[in-house]
Amino acid sequence: MDNFTYSISTVVHFGKGQIKMLGGEIKKRATRVLLVYGGGSIKRNGVYDAVAEQLRKNDIEWVELPGVEPNPRITTVRRGAALCREHGLDGVLAVGGGSSIDCAKAIAVGACYAGDPWDFVCGKAAPQKGLPLFTVLTMAATGSEMDPIAVISDIEANRKQGFNSPHCLPAASILDPCYTFTLPANQTAAGVADIMSHTFENYFSPIEDSFLADGMAETILKGCIKYGPMAIAQPDNYEARANLMWCSSWAINGFLKMGKPVTWSVHAIEHQLSAFYDITHGVGLAILTPNWMRYVLNDKTQHRFADYGVRVWGLDPALPQRQLAETAIDKTREFFNSLGLPATLAQVGIDDSQLEAMAKQAWNPRFASSVFVPLTVEDILNILKMSL
Amino acid sequence: MDNFTYSISTVVHFGKGQIKMLGGEIKKRATRVLLVYGGGSIKRNGVYDAVAEQLRKNDIEWVELPGVEPNPRITTVRRGAALCREHGLDGVLAVGGGSSIDCAKAIAVGACYAGDPWDFVCGKAAPQKGLPLFTVLTMAATGSEMDPIAVISDIEANRKQGFNSPHCLPAASILDPCYTFTLPANQTAAGVADIMSHTFENYFSPIEDSFLADGMAETILKGCIKYGPMAIAQPDNYEARANLMWCSSWAINGFLKMGKPVTWSVHAIEHQLSAFYDITHGVGLAILTPNWMRYVLNDKTQHRFADYGVRVWGLDPALPQRQLAETAIDKTREFFNSLGLPATLAQVGIDDSQLEAMAKQAWNPRFASSVFVPLTVEDILNILKMSL
Repeated sequence: MDNFTYSISTVVHFGKGQIKMLGGEIKKRATRVLLVYGGGSIKRNGVYDAVAEQLRKNDIEWVELPGVEPNPRITTVRRGAALCREHGLDGVLAVGGGSSIDCAKAIAVGACYAGDPWDFVCGKAAPQKGLPLFTVLTMAATGSEMDPIAVISDIEANRKQGFNSPHCLPAASILDPCYTFTLPANQTAAGVADIMSHTFENYFSPIEDSFLADGMAETILKGCIKYGPMAIAQPDNYEARANLMWCSSWAINGFLKMGKPVTWSVHAIEHQLSAFYDITHGVGLAILTPNWMRYVLNDKTQHRFADYGVRVWGLDPALPQRQLAETAIDKTREFFNSLGLPATLAQVGIDDSQLEAMAKQAWNPRFASSVFVPLTVEDILNILKMSL
Repeated sequence: MDNFTYSISTVVHFGKGQIKMLGGEIKKRATRVLLVYGGGSIKRNGVYDAVAEQLRKNDIEWVELPGVEPNPRITTVRRGAALCREHGLDGVLAVGGGSSIDCAKAIAVGACYAGDPWDFVCGKAAPQKGLPLFTVLTMAATGSEMDPIAVISDIEANRKQGFNSPHCLPAASILDPCYTFTLPANQTAAGVADIMSHTFENYFSPIEDSFLADGMAETILKGCIKYGPMAIAQPDNYEARANLMWCSSWAINGFLKMGKPVTWSVHAIEHQLSAFYDITHGVGLAILTPNWMRYVLNDKTQHRFADYGVRVWGLDPALPQRQLAETAIDKTREFFNSLGLPATLAQVGIDDSQLEAMAKQAWNPRFASSVFVPLTVEDILNILKMSL
């Protein structure tokens, strides 16, 4: 097991009605916040009103930044950081899914930085401090509510990239599964694919002795397989929504990679699909993941996919290893299909015209080492071609 | 799933050589610490020297409190709190296993309290603040390195009791698996029984929809079954020691009870064995746990023990439920036996003379509700008799 540091200080208030804890959490750390959210859904389902009531009750002033895009843009981040400075705000509150939260993270550190916040995204600078960040989650997917990562897009430049800073970790997050009851089936499905993809990225690693991390990963995958279809069939099933929500936080809060070297491959490729075509992240992941699995399956990796098949899909361990591995990958694709997710790039309107540009941009030096299976630009291109 | 709050702010530096992080962690929060430890083992195995070097390098002064007992006593806590006040110390550093850490926790809050620290143990008062606490772990067992619980004994009064306060949560803990290489087989075995008992206490609950918590519990149990015998056979097997250590923290840091009502039964009974006879906690738990399981096995609970048998012991799910449950319990006893742990009270020199007094003192009102199976004083007495 590799050395690691565990430090996840986010306070999570989980469950029905936990919005009542929001005001108190903010009041400990801030007096005037930027309220960051996306479209109008939080106004229709009552979440906005519940948040506003908490702020009013606790004498917390706020300025609003609505309209965060599904792939949040650097232009919006710049606007938010400027609002914080202009109004002397001392906290940021995100209400929504991963897009609103990621945008709020970049704003929280951008507001404390004299340069352009894109410097953080492209790695030119690292955040030295940030405004305290609070989140109210309305979608189980990205895990942004309990991790230090933000993914930001520059659509004009076809760029979508993540950065990571302890100053981006939320101070407190409200996770009320009821807030996801109104989520449509396609977004629920994309969220499940996102959670599973985070788990796969952490699970498949060259090191295999991190027993707790791997057992937890298998539990999260089984949780998605059990509760994903249930949440789609019965959108107000509390047990299903609650378990998916808690899975979303733990798939990416860092626990799953503790003790092992992990390099995320599929996410780096998917980010190009979203950067070039602005598609939903979870949909891109569902298309790519089984193809990535097939592409990296070989004599050295097959036992890992076989383990995945036995432990997660309950396949018979007496079967030959290669057969187990292939069946496990097939089952992954079938599961995404059963959730109504697309299986090809054609289904989301992507043709072969930009494949080479995307493959080239997806590659980074980490693809060459510390990774489950190293990939070249040509390998990435092949995976994209398999996905057409 | 029940509502809950997740708040585990302890920073854990895990792995070989992580002692190098100790000085920096203390320096952020304290300048003069009380160094709390037990017997002389940390002087023989080099841990004391490594700690002292960290303190010196970072200009942190210290006063020592050696000789903490295996079941740490309130008299030692009082002495430690007095030393903190007398020398104006602003932090507490525990080096050792659960006993040293629990003692340090009670000292950390006792030093900030005008009354007697026993008030916290018996519930007469709740800690309002505490000195920052740091730990260097040398035994995988109690999980005290990452939880807010301290168990303290008043041997004269035959009392052993736990209390719980956010002010007892360590600020930072160093978990170096190499520090447990010199642990003798009997202590390693008792530690494994302790980790498994914490997990059982959280696992068997009236609520069954906390999927992540239960999957994690099963992983920890499988980890103990895999790595316990390995650590005993090869005391310097890093993989085994590392996985047991990380299991110990997660069995009791609160994660396993999130989303479900949990009342610990076996611990409350075992605390009486230790209070009356000063036996090793993990040994008492190994004796009692399978008997508690047999006693609470009935038509309503058998499916939970059957699930345990299938998921943890890999039993064939096609077998009848009662048979699965009984086999799972038998396997638990056999496993403890295989580690060389006693199976009866007679083996640790306990006869039937104090059973009634212990049963009476073990019972508390929580035994009557929110518990997997409610127990009366007579039930506890029966479990103790089964254990003779």
